[in-house]
Amino acid sequence: MTGTLFGIGVGPGDPELITLKAHRILQTVPVIAWPAPLEGESMARTIASPHITQTPIEIAIRMPLEPTQFPDRSVYDIAADEIGKHLEAGRDVAALCEGDPFFYGSFMYLFGRVAPEYNVVIVPGISSLMAAAAALKSPLASRNDLLTVVPAPLDEETLTEAIQRAESVAIIKVGRHLGKVRRVLDTLSLTNNAQFVAHATMELQSVSPLSEINEDRAPYFSLILVHKRGEAWR
Amino acid sequence: MTGTLFGIGVGPGDPELITLKAHRILQTVPVIAWPAPLEGESMARTIASPHITQTPIEIAIRMPLEPTQFPDRSVYDIAADEIGKHLEAGRDVAALCEGDPFFYGSFMYLFGRVAPEYNVVIVPGISSLMAAAAALKSPLASRNDLLTVVPAPLDEETLTEAIQRAESVAIIKVGRHLGKVRRVLDTLSLTNNAQFVAHATMELQSVSPLSEINEDRAPYFSLILVHKRGEAWR
Repeated sequence: MTGTLFGIGVGPGDPELITLKAHRILQTVPVIAWPAPLEGESMARTIASPHITQTPIEIAIRMPLEPTQFPDRSVYDIAADEIGKHLEAGRDVAALCEGDPFFYGSFMYLFGRVAPEYNVVIVPGISSLMAAAAALKSPLASRNDLLTVVPAPLDEETLTEAIQRAESVAIIKVGRHLGKVRRVLDTLSLTNNAQFVAHATMELQSVSPLSEINEDRAPYFSLILVHKRGEAWR
Repeated sequence: MTGTLFGIGVGPGDPELITLKAHRILQTVPVIAWPAPLEGESMARTIASPHITQTPIEIAIRMPLEPTQFPDRSVYDIAADEIGKHLEAGRDVAALCEGDPFFYGSFMYLFGRVAPEYNVVIVPGISSLMAAAAALKSPLASRNDLLTVVPAPLDEETLTEAIQRAESVAIIKVGRHLGKVRRVLDTLSLTNNAQFVAHATMELQSVSPLSEINEDRAPYFSLILVHKRGEAWR
């Protein structure tokens, strides 16, 4: 019997925002794999730590946090190979993913390499999108709103068009694109409808109107929520 | 000391896809409120059942599942009033929400009425969006995809425009709009990129290519995921 690869969403940061299913799997799985920046800690591993009570074999998958346009993905070939050996030997493997595995996660690169040959089960997680709305105490979308998720690295024209067309917009991967995003929102007269959230549900959580943020850079894991109707959902 | 209203995301259906935080609160809260159709069971209450081990006071909030354009929202006034009395008396209240409380949920109507006067805490949940992607074993969005969530009740022209502009589209609230949605996707030559998911993570879960679905009606809680690049995320 070969093992199963579990793609585990560990949620946005608060270790209590992990599912019972993820918790159960993490407590027993003999091998875990996690993404990490080139140097330093893995956020996914840190979030999962309170739930890992055995001593599993650990596989680090290190990539730059803000990858260049053409990153070297051979690191995923190597990791998939190592994971494959454990699965062949009948050992289950849990791949930890910040937020949700299939919501803009790097897990898809592992999935694409492992799923054609082995059993893969996805355990969905709370994404930063829902965590940010909860932190802001403001609905993400309601009724028949069009909700668009817009990655901030897109060019100014694409950002402008996408933001114009939806009632509700979540701008993700803000990082070094904060200045550009602010310009776009200013031009569209939407700055006063925009809220900034960094590190949602973590100790470092910060929440504020975009108009009060003066920097041109933000943490990579920050996002901006824009709702055109303001509080009309009441 | 007045009580706190917790808006609890109970997740998409599988009771194990609830967070540890929601689980902890549900086990101790003295009052729970839940939405339900005019007749019959509450999906949120059913999902939460295994986690409610005490005998709380229960408040049913009954509304038609597919509301008309101008529904009578006085039911939320009455529920908010009843919840307010418990909060005044120092009793915490958990309002159960299918999926995530702030992702197109009816919880916002309660929130709008209770939050101005009382402490409200949102516990995010796994939305049907992430559950559907997990069930399909297909990433929702990746890299710099524009992801748009499109409620199926919108008119054909709005649907067409919204679907045209995004790489990745989730069409929610399909219900009796399935025929219209199929027409729009056919016209855009996207039927072969569309997957249909009903009752994700539940026993009744059904997953299939849209091209194999012949009905013109689907469950209200079903959705269609469209990815223009197919499997290019590999």
